[in-house]
Amino acid sequence: MASHAFRPVTHHHTFAAHPPALSVAPGDTIRTHTVDAAGVDADGSRVAARGNPLTGPIRVEGAEPGDHLAVHLNAVTPNRTHGFGRASLAPGVLDPDFLAEVGAEAAHDGAAWQVDAGAGTVTLTHPSSPIEGLVLPLAPMLGCIGVAPAGGQAISTATSGPHGGNMDYRRLGGGVTVYLPVFVPGASLFVGDAHALQGDGEMSGTGVEISADVHLTVDLVEGVPIGWPRGEDDTHRFTLGNARPLDQATQHATTEMVRWLMRDHGWDAATAGLFLSQCVRYELGNMFDPAYTVACKVPHDALARVGA
Amino acid sequence: MASHAFRPVTHHHTFAAHPPALSVAPGDTIRTHTVDAAGVDADGSRVAARGNPLTGPIRVEGAEPGDHLAVHLNAVTPNRTHGFGRASLAPGVLDPDFLAEVGAEAAHDGAAWQVDAGAGTVTLTHPSSPIEGLVLPLAPMLGCIGVAPAGGQAISTATSGPHGGNMDYRRLGGGVTVYLPVFVPGASLFVGDAHALQGDGEMSGTGVEISADVHLTVDLVEGVPIGWPRGEDDTHRFTLGNARPLDQATQHATTEMVRWLMRDHGWDAATAGLFLSQCVRYELGNMFDPAYTVACKVPHDALARVGA
Amino acid sequence: MASHAFRPVTHHHTFAAHPPALSVAPGDTIRTHTVDAAGVDADGSRVAARGNPLTGPIRVEGAEPGDHLAVHLNAVTPNRTHGFGRASLAPGVLDPDFLAEVGAEAAHDGAAWQVDAGAGTVTLTHPSSPIEGLVLPLAPMLGCIGVAPAGGQAISTATSGPHGGNMDYRRLGGGVTVYLPVFVPGASLFVGDAHALQGDGEMSGTGVEISADVHLTVDLVEGVPIGWPRGEDDTHRFTLGNARPLDQATQHATTEMVRWLMRDHGWDAATAGLFLSQCVRYELGNMFDPAYTVACKVPHDALARVGA
Amino acid sequence: MASHAFRPVTHHHTFAAHPPALSVAPGDTIRTHTVDAAGVDADGSRVAARGNPLTGPIRVEGAEPGDHLAVHLNAVTPNRTHGFGRASLAPGVLDPDFLAEVGAEAAHDGAAWQVDAGAGTVTLTHPSSPIEGLVLPLAPMLGCIGVAPAGGQAISTATSGPHGGNMDYRRLGGGVTVYLPVFVPGASLFVGDAHALQGDGEMSGTGVEISADVHLTVDLVEGVPIGWPRGEDDTHRFTLGNARPLDQATQHATTEMVRWLMRDHGWDAATAGLFLSQCVRYELGNMFDPAYTVACKVPHDALARVGA
Repeated sequence: MASHAFRPVTHHHTFAAHPPALSVAPGDTIRTHTVDAAGVDADGSRVAARGNPLTGPIRVEGAEPGDHLAVHLNAVTPNRTHGFGRASLAPGVLDPDFLAEVGAEAAHDGAAWQVDAGAGTVTLTHPSSPIEGLVLPLAPMLGCIGVAPAGGQAISTATSGPHGGNMDYRRLGGGVTVYLPVFVPGASLFVGDAHALQGDGEMSGTGVEISADVHLTVDLVEGVPIGWPRGEDDTHRFTLGNARPLDQATQHATTEMVRWLMRDHGWDAATAGLFLSQCVRYELGNMFDPAYTVACKVPHDALARVGA
Repeated sequence: MASHAFRPVTHHHTFAAHPPALSVAPGDTIRTHTVDAAGVDADGSRVAARGNPLTGPIRVEGAEPGDHLAVHLNAVTPNRTHGFGRASLAPGVLDPDFLAEVGAEAAHDGAAWQVDAGAGTVTLTHPSSPIEGLVLPLAPMLGCIGVAPAGGQAISTATSGPHGGNMDYRRLGGGVTVYLPVFVPGASLFVGDAHALQGDGEMSGTGVEISADVHLTVDLVEGVPIGWPRGEDDTHRFTLGNARPLDQATQHATTEMVRWLMRDHGWDAATAGLFLSQCVRYELGNMFDPAYTVACKVPHDALARVGA
Repeated sequence: MASHAFRPVTHHHTFAAHPPALSVAPGDTIRTHTVDAAGVDADGSRVAARGNPLTGPIRVEGAEPGDHLAVHLNAVTPNRTHGFGRASLAPGVLDPDFLAEVGAEAAHDGAAWQVDAGAGTVTLTHPSSPIEGLVLPLAPMLGCIGVAPAGGQAISTATSGPHGGNMDYRRLGGGVTVYLPVFVPGASLFVGDAHALQGDGEMSGTGVEISADVHLTVDLVEGVPIGWPRGEDDTHRFTLGNARPLDQATQHATTEMVRWLMRDHGWDAATAGLFLSQCVRYELGNMFDPAYTVACKVPHDALARVGA
Repeated sequence: MASHAFRPVTHHHTFAAHPPALSVAPGDTIRTHTVDAAGVDADGSRVAARGNPLTGPIRVEGAEPGDHLAVHLNAVTPNRTHGFGRASLAPGVLDPDFLAEVGAEAAHDGAAWQVDAGAGTVTLTHPSSPIEGLVLPLAPMLGCIGVAPAGGQAISTATSGPHGGNMDYRRLGGGVTVYLPVFVPGASLFVGDAHALQGDGEMSGTGVEISADVHLTVDLVEGVPIGWPRGEDDTHRFTLGNARPLDQATQHATTEMVRWLMRDHGWDAATAGLFLSQCVRYELGNMFDPAYTVACKVPHDALARVGA
């Protein structure tokens, strides 16, 4: 259970089986960092092209297709004070008639945010607007986490799939465990695109974009395939479906949760349905990319009550 | 500001400008009850055909097209101890491949729940299954609330639209205010389809179905048209979009929230986008009917910080 | 087999079980007319409010829920020379990014067309634009055809459903037989919204809108329920699914075709799949209303080859 | 304008900038062949893994990002007599309720077809079923055609995108010209997955799968970027949008057609809308893969009438 300090040099823009930048054993811990979505690091230097450049791939020794990774995000911490974003409404989340009406008026220049990790706040410093000076609670997270996909594919960091990717789900911060399918030997794990804060949907196409220190521990679960990313935090287990429309992402996430409940607890499909119909929660991740992200959630508490 | 005790006799199965069953003035309070989705009342008597029979319409004096109602749900309280539901997975929220695989196995016979309003619990008493005896917290709400739609339409209680309807959003319980557009003189307000508890999506097609006592106060906001149902509770304001796919329901709800922010706070569209991109939350209502329901939410807290 | 000359007086804007305007026996023939989408008749007089006012309802004696109608459209003939339409791109069929870019520029004032039934042409006479004078072949059809829906509903002529409605499928002109489910005693058949010509999707929200003479024969098929509108012309049988997104409309239309093939030819579902996978054609009707229309088609020719 | 006889050795399963297998100059003609979707060639030998193995990439000298290719499909000719397919209904094109009802009954074993290029027919020889012996007209086409995508991606032959891919549009046979965007130097053109016949949607996941001889001529159009695949045959020009749901594929295809009309003919967006609203046709390609394909079509004839 080694501890690795990993300083990324190359930043890929696709999730793929690129040559490993670091190799770790299951149980190892890694301290690394991510550059922001525009390729700028903690010092304000542009070190990669824009478009969610990734840190990785991290090769997990012994990982084989049919296994899955358990990635414990111990901490995601912004490592500078300047965050940025778009000041606009994503065309895709507006009624077409309204969009035709407001047109280009729906976009300002970019926004700037002051990030104070000590105070736990982000403060809007630009543009000059009726909400200038808005102070919101810091809630750091990773917009991108994933592995190399199946079939020799290389998938852009501008979208997501069964391999994870740019899911922009605000729960993917410190304290969460993310489970990811393994499609290639070594898994090829990547992280990137940290946000100091982000609303559901990442609906302007950005959160508060920032570089971050990332502390994670990687475990391997052998011989248990999963179909879509899964996770757990203090209160819930969840599954993530990535597709369009949201209905299809919901179908993927729900089916993955049903499979999880059936396998782990020995339930049949109807029992899973009976349980979920009263207990399930849904949340939205990214609604800006070619694929949207839906989380299907179940409270640990309710599972505990049935001895599951 | 009269107080009305209203005992419904006729139960409609469409939202339409039916003859008023009660007429109230703005500011009046009404104590009434709803029968369950199968038409059964507090005494276990079937008093209406199945399919979400409604209580109403309540005519609001002076309400005209272009106004909107503010319906304060003071309390929604189950008025018997027996709740029921389906024990199945809704075909529409599963991957088609999985559905073809499990087929009819995804459904049990119906479920029965014991509802204890004093203890604040619902307990699964049937079917015999691995989760028999599951105890969950009571969280009563109205599956149906709405008004007569525009254009002389009569819309089934099995779906929803700009007029509200069968939205199955779990926040629509005691303590919430629901705003509804007025399309016809008198508005024709209806309530029905109470649930003692319901997961997001009402994904088996039922919550814990029950009859309930409903205590509500109706106000009228004259000359302010709204496009979709809106609401407020202690922590958030929200808008409700009803359509398929979820993407379109999201577009309706988001656009309605943007219009609300623009009108009430004098913001332009880009300011609304900048605010929402960091603060918005989405939740899902019904995902079983022909139209699905999406809630777009904004915390009062964040609005208060910008003096809005 | 009587022949009725029916001059409509009242024009409804919902498909519902309104009082019959005409009562016919199965096998009867009706000569009537429809006013245009704006309520204007052959003489240029506005006789009804805009929004697809209907001719009907026609009560079909003996029709009961579980039967279906066979409506033979013998002829649909424009009865004046002036047609009109919008000159715009429907926001819903454009990429949101493109829409935000072109905004309100995507709409001109209305268009005017000269309709020459003798020559079989429509000619663009307004607005002045690079395509002024465009001559296209006349292809008259009914935008609206349908019956009273189930459950006491009254559904706007601005949308569609299992009862038919505003489907805007360009094949619904002279020579086609349309099959419609019966949901209420007497069926309550309506026609309206004729177009001298229309592209797929009715993608500006209009075809060449015009009043028309309609000649139709109504038959009743007792005891054979159907789920969605069906039809036949010289070359194909087809089914019509009405929903959003197009994927769901496609699911309805395909399932209805599979049921038709299974029932009429005694096939199992896999045989229907094998046949359709090589023979099926899809076409699009309305893509402008709340519900979209998809046609699933099978050539008579291919069915004849398997003795079906 | 050289003529190349190209015998593929390596068969890729992704569209990507793989090392060129052949390099040609603009204007050159290529005679090559494709193996079937299962990797089997004209002689019945399996020479590649299943899953739409491709022929290529063909490097087009001088092609640079911002150009587009014009690929003339001179002929696509099955080069053996045995075709195969699935005998099933794709779960995704059926109503979920119907799917839950028929479940696994919707699939037979595979189907076999006898292909007679001389007679121009395909004949169903297996399975034994009510439609055994069905004879249909031969209509050969390429299920896959595309180039290396943008951003260093490698995209599976099981889906499609702006680069083309597995679009399964039945018009992509002999006599059509396909226009493809260029995203990487040399373009990296691929072809594969021939079908002797296929219905719209490829709705069982297969057409009549076969190996084929392909005769094509490649031209380069420099400095004219296009956003999505386009094409022309004797009667129409068309654009292809690839996405889910069909609504989004339709938005891509329509927007690409509007851009084409605006650029080539100097029209504004409203003129394009006015023209399309009366002239447009839509057809469906693949409805089985993660991305669906919609064709937006315009008749040459109508364009000719406005001197365009």
